[in-house]
Amino acid sequence: MYKDKITRGNRPLILVTNDDGINARGIKALSEYLMPLGDVVVVAPDGARSGQSAAITVNVPLRMALVEERDGYKAFKTTGTPVDCVKLALNVLFADRPDLIVSGINHGSNSGVSVIYSGTMGAVFEGIVQGIPSIGFSLCTFAPDADFSVCREVVELLCRQAINKGLPRDMGLNVNIPAVERLEGIKVCRAARGRWTAEYDSRIDPIGRPYYWLTGYFDNAEPDAPDTDEYNMARNYASVVPVTPDRSLTEIDPRVIEWLRE
Amino acid sequence: MYKDKITRGNRPLILVTNDDGINARGIKALSEYLMPLGDVVVVAPDGARSGQSAAITVNVPLRMALVEERDGYKAFKTTGTPVDCVKLALNVLFADRPDLIVSGINHGSNSGVSVIYSGTMGAVFEGIVQGIPSIGFSLCTFAPDADFSVCREVVELLCRQAINKGLPRDMGLNVNIPAVERLEGIKVCRAARGRWTAEYDSRIDPIGRPYYWLTGYFDNAEPDAPDTDEYNMARNYASVVPVTPDRSLTEIDPRVIEWLRE
Repeated sequence: MYKDKITRGNRPLILVTNDDGINARGIKALSEYLMPLGDVVVVAPDGARSGQSAAITVNVPLRMALVEERDGYKAFKTTGTPVDCVKLALNVLFADRPDLIVSGINHGSNSGVSVIYSGTMGAVFEGIVQGIPSIGFSLCTFAPDADFSVCREVVELLCRQAINKGLPRDMGLNVNIPAVERLEGIKVCRAARGRWTAEYDSRIDPIGRPYYWLTGYFDNAEPDAPDTDEYNMARNYASVVPVTPDRSLTEIDPRVIEWLRE
Repeated sequence: MYKDKITRGNRPLILVTNDDGINARGIKALSEYLMPLGDVVVVAPDGARSGQSAAITVNVPLRMALVEERDGYKAFKTTGTPVDCVKLALNVLFADRPDLIVSGINHGSNSGVSVIYSGTMGAVFEGIVQGIPSIGFSLCTFAPDADFSVCREVVELLCRQAINKGLPRDMGLNVNIPAVERLEGIKVCRAARGRWTAEYDSRIDPIGRPYYWLTGYFDNAEPDAPDTDEYNMARNYASVVPVTPDRSLTEIDPRVIEWLRE
């Protein structure tokens, strides 16, 4: 089926994925904004995979199918997670490595601690591990009729830079864009510390058994910190958080060694 | 159903979870090793959730049910991911916060880049976000008859320390234990850099359609680095990697600001 692997032509090769699924409005907008910059190959889940983090599918095999093809654009759906999509693209579909991996545009924010749970950003972390410049974009609204056009300039600017100049090793970008008519600009930030609280809506089903819906709100532990994404988004800036997939504390706290010795 | 929420008695309260499911041998061994240290409450998935990273369940509600109760020990199964289990425990089950969250003992390694995909470690990152000392344990073998007893001393030592002295804010531990008869000791490390390669086994189903099994091997980019988990595990040490859920690069590379400006 994929005997004719995808190769890089004269234009940059851009892999696009998301966690809202191949039919989401956000990934269609993203592909449209990227097509002036290069050849776009979409490899995205066949339905919603929100909250999938960097999950991979290990217990069942995956399917992948071409769903659309036109000049400078191909789209494949898969039965996997966002990380599976990146892995399938790089291992099965592509003969050449893409110049850039872009994930999104997510319907809803991935700022603050949400980056941990985000499937959009899971795909970005996978791209970084594979050594390819990778950027995730989110529009901070769940409104079904959301206007993605406010993202266009930010997507174009950052993706053009990433194609032309790359990104430092082990670094990707988590970009969150407030759903406003006009942005004040772009700010490089760190993720606000905090956690989700009041997280379950407990209900009783028609035959008397309990069940639990995930809900809650983000409790920002540092609302006044001007270097955080939440602070700047509240002031109509697009936030750009440089992120790394590395989970190790890079400088090992000497207290830990001491702690172990006692 | 959970009107009588779980409270802390005179002994430390320990929440135990995993990603191999409530019936896995690893979580039974872990609970046994922890019972001398405190009251153990297991809240674990009802089946395998390997590779679930920090995934959360957002599109369907969750179920939770008590499956076992004896002196100093309760066990609940859930339909969720490891992170869901931690969230359900803290939000629905517990009136008091646990003193410690322990995840595992995973069947197979979570060293190197595997920490990104690990459901075992997803639960640990959730615990850290919630401000509770959290540790993940993995035994580096998939052998179904694996002998977990080599982990006992390491589990007891680290969990006792974490209960008595806590862990620094935003820090948890990823502990990987080689499947050997006798450990040389415990080493504090960082995760080895690298990536999984050759990742899919492509097959054709009986009616001629392709499908893809995730497979491959870990390609260690720095096999000779003596401060990495892989290096020390190969020399029969248990590796302890201090980890953080924060994905932001804490010191923002000034090149990024420059990069944006150009």
